[in-house]
Amino acid sequence: MGARLKDVADRAGVSFKTVSNVINNHPNVTEKTRQKVLQAIAELRYRPNVTARSLRHGRSGFLAIALPELRSPYFAVLASEIGAAAKREGLVVLIEETFGERDGERIALEGLASTLIDGIVFSPMATPARDVAARLDATPMVLLGERAHPAGCDHIAVDNVRAAREVTQHLLDIGRQRIAAIGAERGSVTGGLRARGYRQALTAAGIDVDPALTVSKIGYDRAGGASAMAALLDSGTDIDAVFCFNDLIALGALRVLRERGVRVPEDIAVAGFDDIEDGRYSSPTLTTVSPDIPFLAAEAVRLIVRRLADPDAPATDVEVPFTVQVRESTAGG
Amino acid sequence: MGARLKDVADRAGVSFKTVSNVINNHPNVTEKTRQKVLQAIAELRYRPNVTARSLRHGRSGFLAIALPELRSPYFAVLASEIGAAAKREGLVVLIEETFGERDGERIALEGLASTLIDGIVFSPMATPARDVAARLDATPMVLLGERAHPAGCDHIAVDNVRAAREVTQHLLDIGRQRIAAIGAERGSVTGGLRARGYRQALTAAGIDVDPALTVSKIGYDRAGGASAMAALLDSGTDIDAVFCFNDLIALGALRVLRERGVRVPEDIAVAGFDDIEDGRYSSPTLTTVSPDIPFLAAEAVRLIVRRLADPDAPATDVEVPFTVQVRESTAGG
Repeated sequence: MGARLKDVADRAGVSFKTVSNVINNHPNVTEKTRQKVLQAIAELRYRPNVTARSLRHGRSGFLAIALPELRSPYFAVLASEIGAAAKREGLVVLIEETFGERDGERIALEGLASTLIDGIVFSPMATPARDVAARLDATPMVLLGERAHPAGCDHIAVDNVRAAREVTQHLLDIGRQRIAAIGAERGSVTGGLRARGYRQALTAAGIDVDPALTVSKIGYDRAGGASAMAALLDSGTDIDAVFCFNDLIALGALRVLRERGVRVPEDIAVAGFDDIEDGRYSSPTLTTVSPDIPFLAAEAVRLIVRRLADPDAPATDVEVPFTVQVRESTAGG
Repeated sequence: MGARLKDVADRAGVSFKTVSNVINNHPNVTEKTRQKVLQAIAELRYRPNVTARSLRHGRSGFLAIALPELRSPYFAVLASEIGAAAKREGLVVLIEETFGERDGERIALEGLASTLIDGIVFSPMATPARDVAARLDATPMVLLGERAHPAGCDHIAVDNVRAAREVTQHLLDIGRQRIAAIGAERGSVTGGLRARGYRQALTAAGIDVDPALTVSKIGYDRAGGASAMAALLDSGTDIDAVFCFNDLIALGALRVLRERGVRVPEDIAVAGFDDIEDGRYSSPTLTTVSPDIPFLAAEAVRLIVRRLADPDAPATDVEVPFTVQVRESTAGG
């Protein structure tokens, strides 16, 4: 049904080769000829057959990122950093939001785009490890996070247990003893790991883990943090600090503490996880675990490029460095 | 070089048709056969030829969104809402971050992905209207915002002049007279429109527009808002309100006002634009212009679907409804 290259050449009154030169941005085309060809292309609604071109080169030049939630500033920045790293390798990034649902994640796994993309960076939320391992696609893939991590896959993650232990230790170091934890959701692998680090720090300090101080079954967002903080305050439990399993939860908690007239950090110190920009400008600014996102992004692209060059390269596990950024929410302001 | 469907069939010891059924998720395949085929696919690194499939159906099922900045919560939420609206139409969204640069935007315009996608939603920042009009691609496209808006394109935008006028009017209504404006950057069409609305409201109220109250040449982010607010305070100019041209600028300004001990809204009232979630949880919460993003997203997808059905449909301009959300930063807290 569509116009062919030859139709464009006829319409513009130029050779087949000239049309091809315009499409491929060849410098040896005068602006006048270029405009004539562009006009013919527009009039005929011609679509250059990119697939044929990419198959000639053996690569499409597209890298896909499948992420659960773009509304989460953490994932938005991660996607943006991977885009910047991919650009340095001449790859263009296409982002797909899975909403953390199986249906969305099937696309990453079943290779709907497999002839269109050179690689995929996938942060699975809903897909079990065995299904990731059995995916219907041979496109090079790097897995992010610790939810579904089958053997034999390239994989990048923060050491969540250690990071949670260190930020909890910081709360202990400033003299807090009744430290609550928000975010240990059932079914969340990452939440489970952060809860483990929290418990390890308390136990090492000789403090019993009080189940009344752990709030789960919330969303990993501001609204979830706000309702969890309200529930903790309403319970009447004695609290002098809260470790929130991400910054959005912490920002929701900060808001409720302000509404209730609770001073941060004097009455309750607050720490988060992710180091999103919001927490650097909030009042008070937010103490948090800061993973090295540019490092993560560069490694993700490096592993894809490596596997494109050598499909049989050994599977690699990369650990993302992090620091604990101490700000007003635990250090006075 | 790659394995073919026949190779997979041979390896799995099944028919060509059975492999095709597995790839297309046909229900009439036993789990055992499915696993056998999946294993053969994995071992042979077979990539199903999706392009051939999509050409058979005449559609790829992919909708591209080209946006300047995913780090901006406004664009992240917009992308997510378009994704949700597209899903209801059976379309999968691929997002491309252009960084607001010509190079990134060329991809949207020159149709690199034209055989791969059914439509594109494009928010141009760096590309002049004449280049958008002359794009080398006949894929249905909807333009967002008011930067590059050639005649004959489907187009969706907020009435920025009216929205800026209304939020400035709100600052006048609460008795403010020395209202600063941050964000009227040279070369920013949107910034220019918001500055016009701001001036219209002042003039209608019989207040002279004081150039000392307008700060431009900043980034549209928290850091830009912080430095602009600091510059305004350092200038010694008398100010009792600030209209920031987006919420990120306002959040940066709020942070500086807190650091300087300026009370919001008692000393200086602050208003933003976009209604991102950050401003609903900040301290104080942020008064802002709230555009109807779900409406915008649904209209963008509707216009693409309409143009797929009828390439000659008349170009449509859609105006996005908005409200002014009054919160603590202008109403006491």
